[in-house]
Amino acid sequence: MEKRAMLYEGKAKQLFETTEPNILWVQYKDALTAFNGEKKEQAKGKGRLNNEISSLLFKQLSKAGISNHFVKRMSETEQLVKKTSIIPIEVVIRNVAAGSLARRLGLEEGIPLNTTIAEYYYKDDDLGDPLINEDHIKFLNLVSSNQLNEMKEIALRVNRHLTKYFKACDVELVDFKLEFGFDKEGELILSDEISPDTCRLWDVHTNEKLDKDVFREGIGQVDQAYETILTRLKGAVVND
Amino acid sequence: MEKRAMLYEGKAKQLFETTEPNILWVQYKDALTAFNGEKKEQAKGKGRLNNEISSLLFKQLSKAGISNHFVKRMSETEQLVKKTSIIPIEVVIRNVAAGSLARRLGLEEGIPLNTTIAEYYYKDDDLGDPLINEDHIKFLNLVSSNQLNEMKEIALRVNRHLTKYFKACDVELVDFKLEFGFDKEGELILSDEISPDTCRLWDVHTNEKLDKDVFREGIGQVDQAYETILTRLKGAVVND
Repeated sequence: MEKRAMLYEGKAKQLFETTEPNILWVQYKDALTAFNGEKKEQAKGKGRLNNEISSLLFKQLSKAGISNHFVKRMSETEQLVKKTSIIPIEVVIRNVAAGSLARRLGLEEGIPLNTTIAEYYYKDDDLGDPLINEDHIKFLNLVSSNQLNEMKEIALRVNRHLTKYFKACDVELVDFKLEFGFDKEGELILSDEISPDTCRLWDVHTNEKLDKDVFREGIGQVDQAYETILTRLKGAVVND
Repeated sequence: MEKRAMLYEGKAKQLFETTEPNILWVQYKDALTAFNGEKKEQAKGKGRLNNEISSLLFKQLSKAGISNHFVKRMSETEQLVKKTSIIPIEVVIRNVAAGSLARRLGLEEGIPLNTTIAEYYYKDDDLGDPLINEDHIKFLNLVSSNQLNEMKEIALRVNRHLTKYFKACDVELVDFKLEFGFDKEGELILSDEISPDTCRLWDVHTNEKLDKDVFREGIGQVDQAYETILTRLKGAVVND
């Protein structure tokens, strides 16, 4: 397997073609961005940390029978994934009030939700990734109603598994964002990454933030927070 | 029936108790407000116009079998309505792209939607009436899932009827907002008002705006626009 031409460069990753038509080569970058790219920074080691954390979590989800695009970690900052046609919807699952949910509903950050909340956001930087509902998705013709239900169902299953994995290492899964795509067989699978860039992760005892909010809010060392997550995940015996 | 103490004063209406415990007396005001109350103006005749338009439309909907709170028009600016416990959800139905939908999805104003879009907003001035989804409604415990489905179903029926009424007088129903409440028997019924304050109404030939956007955008005489709607509705023979 060889790396070929770059297909796409995002805020946190570069995607390359490979000699296999259905496999992409992902290079995780050290860049940190927030507020739709308005705040930017380089964080040495962040590419390595997210590559390793995401690989570890996708492997756990695979073991739990949740189809995803992860194939193999290639180096500290690189991994192979299945090529998918990305669906421009971010599925957000929330267990505790934080971020835009807290602002939207006027909730105090940290309040546990008595019911898991799923939200859909339209992946469009120019529009600021707005919240959308099922009728908007139907109008935009992004996925069918059945596919959307399947996405939500998978996201809730992922939530149950990830909540358990993180709890086992004293981390609370506050909320997280998933992306999905269709593989070459047309199967809906989990794609993108699962990392402290895409999850809110708090220490269960101190509520210390161990995710991108450390960068958003400028409240500490991002690389140390992410390193804590990786160390704890590796140390926890995750039997699923 | 006599008017008693004022129960509540909103931006566009005052509500009074009456000698009947389940009937309220509504006084429509001449006040116009927009952008969550930030833009304000007095428009002479606007209370009369909305009282008359809303009475007329509620009567038509009653004939079509759609339960609502309207009882009787009492004067130019007053009407009686059934007392309901208001549900803090605004149901918005959209047939053509305009307003916040156009901004949210980056659509050109005036594009007909190939599918009717329903949206829910949380009635909370402090939060700016945010868009919410079914999971938010469940978490906030505003109504049950069945009640929400019933609200959406009624709103879509209202849409079919109102679209027809307005089309008969050369007016396009672009979008509108409904509110619901529970009457003393616990029945879910349509409440609030249906007027150019709560509907976007365009002339079908010229696309001239004949609703509150005239005020929001400062593009003409609000009272004349509303008077046009009333005159046309009265002139149209609405057989439903």
